[in-house]
Amino acid sequence: MIRPLGERVVVKPLPSEERTKGGIVLPDTAKEKPQEGEVIAVGSGKILETGQRVPIDLKPGDRILFSKYAGNEVKIDDVEYLIMREADILGVIEK
Amino acid sequence: MIRPLGERVVVKPLPSEERTKGGIVLPDTAKEKPQEGEVIAVGSGKILETGQRVPIDLKPGDRILFSKYAGNEVKIDDVEYLIMREADILGVIEK
Amino acid sequence: MIRPLGERVVVKPLPSEERTKGGIVLPDTAKEKPQEGEVIAVGSGKILETGQRVPIDLKPGDRILFSKYAGNEVKIDDVEYLIMREADILGVIEK
Amino acid sequence: MIRPLGERVVVKPLPSEERTKGGIVLPDTAKEKPQEGEVIAVGSGKILETGQRVPIDLKPGDRILFSKYAGNEVKIDDVEYLIMREADILGVIEK
Amino acid sequence: MIRPLGERVVVKPLPSEERTKGGIVLPDTAKEKPQEGEVIAVGSGKILETGQRVPIDLKPGDRILFSKYAGNEVKIDDVEYLIMREADILGVIEK
Amino acid sequence: MIRPLGERVVVKPLPSEERTKGGIVLPDTAKEKPQEGEVIAVGSGKILETGQRVPIDLKPGDRILFSKYAGNEVKIDDVEYLIMREADILGVIEK
Amino acid sequence: MIRPLGERVVVKPLPSEERTKGGIVLPDTAKEKPQEGEVIAVGSGKILETGQRVPIDLKPGDRILFSKYAGNEVKIDDVEYLIMREADILGVIEK
Repeated sequence: MIRPLGERVVVKPLPSEERTKGGIVLPDTAKEKPQEGEVIAVGSGKILETGQRVPIDLKPGDRILFSKYAGNEVKIDDVEYLIMREADILGVIEK
Repeated sequence: MIRPLGERVVVKPLPSEERTKGGIVLPDTAKEKPQEGEVIAVGSGKILETGQRVPIDLKPGDRILFSKYAGNEVKIDDVEYLIMREADILGVIEK
Repeated sequence: MIRPLGERVVVKPLPSEERTKGGIVLPDTAKEKPQEGEVIAVGSGKILETGQRVPIDLKPGDRILFSKYAGNEVKIDDVEYLIMREADILGVIEK
Repeated sequence: MIRPLGERVVVKPLPSEERTKGGIVLPDTAKEKPQEGEVIAVGSGKILETGQRVPIDLKPGDRILFSKYAGNEVKIDDVEYLIMREADILGVIEK
Repeated sequence: MIRPLGERVVVKPLPSEERTKGGIVLPDTAKEKPQEGEVIAVGSGKILETGQRVPIDLKPGDRILFSKYAGNEVKIDDVEYLIMREADILGVIEK
Repeated sequence: MIRPLGERVVVKPLPSEERTKGGIVLPDTAKEKPQEGEVIAVGSGKILETGQRVPIDLKPGDRILFSKYAGNEVKIDDVEYLIMREADILGVIEK
Repeated sequence: MIRPLGERVVVKPLPSEERTKGGIVLPDTAKEKPQEGEVIAVGSGKILETGQRVPIDLKPGDRILFSKYAGNEVKIDDVEYLIMREADILGVIEK
């Protein structure tokens, strides 16, 4: 597995079919549309100028929406993941 | 529902008809014109370099004006929402 | 009415005729020329990195000069207003 | 009169004739050349991130050199002034 | 050997063959793909504005993923290394 | 004379002949080459975000090297000077 | 000699022949390649926003690698030097 550094998060993007099942449909207009994914692992958090570390406000298993241009792709054991910054994650989908 | 992260806010944009009823008309000139919406959910607020968190100065139900280029679109149960930063919100319409 | 957020100010721009009466004439040269207006409402002020809030150094009724590219336009009950940042306001005209 | 906000200064630019009398001649080379003026009014100063205000290091009557691209023009009772930031002022001419 | 300064890390990039053996395959899509490498040496860490030093969260021998545009190349005794900033390292591959 | 503000320094640039006498020759390659000058006056120093003032690490009479694109030109009593920021000064030539 | 200011360092770049003797060979690929040099003099260090000075983590005689676009060239008594910022120095070559 990958342990993300600092303010980074490992996310498994969800394919379009799963997203439709979950009730989230991304409309077809001009504004940037986020993508849906699942949090796999979170880093230890960002360090502020005072030296304080801010824990990431997410946990493995969270269903999230993220900016579609976010992250670097990596494939582990044939599964695709994205490593992105917490700031690229817009919100958590709660049931 | 979506829980926005940090300084983000979930907003339901109001269509033009509703906006006219509310007494706010956006004029037709060169400057950027804001849009009207309703706050649905607010994040936990921005974290300052001292580690202090600044609560978002808005609550669900607030009628707001926001920059028309703000936010990412998302559709939940066939309703369109925008997820934007508090800094993209110009003011609250008070009755 | 509109309650501006944070460091924002609601301003009623003054038309050219009123401006001439007030003794302020904007010359016709190459440099950017400010516009005149009246402060209608002020936000709660900017928050510094230490968490301290800086009150806006203006009050409703102040006659101000502001950068002509400043602000977003909005019309309420057929009157046009601008919502701008305090930093776009150059000075207060005192009698 | 105009009360400048924060780190702003109201300056009366001096025409070329006066400048020659004052002994300052601006040479004709490639580098940016400053202009000469007189301080008319100073703001209350810049606010630092700690909330401390730094008084402007100038007083009305000071003869100054300022960057020629600095400031916004305004005319009051037929006299032209510039409103600029303290940071655009290079130095004070002392006799 | 090279002692990296501050927030810098010396990394030995791993050739494609080794990477396939390790189970990490980089997919062929539009997003930026990270590269795999081994940490050889770490600097003393970044200094915050408060003067506090943040130790680098990596140790020699760590298998890492890094941004493919990261770092400066250098060859020592015929082996190629990269000197990059800790911020260019995305995560640690844990077995 | 000119009293420079804050982190600014008044410098008298030295013509090429004097520079050759002083033993400093600027080579003819691709990199930016500094110019030589003499410090005439220094400002009171930069103010940090904590409100602390950092005295300028130079004194009148110092022979310095500065970035050739630095500063604004001004002529006083027929002598050309440059007003530049301390950060544009690379070092002091010591005998 | 030159006393570098603040976070600056005077470096004597090493010609290609010397570099080969030292065992460091710079490969011929797309990434930016650092150059080798010797530290001649170091400044007093960078000043943080808290007013604290961070001593430069180098001493005269250190063999270093630096970014090839770093620094300003100067020739003293027919020897070429570079004046660069500490941040442009990647690491120290230790024997």
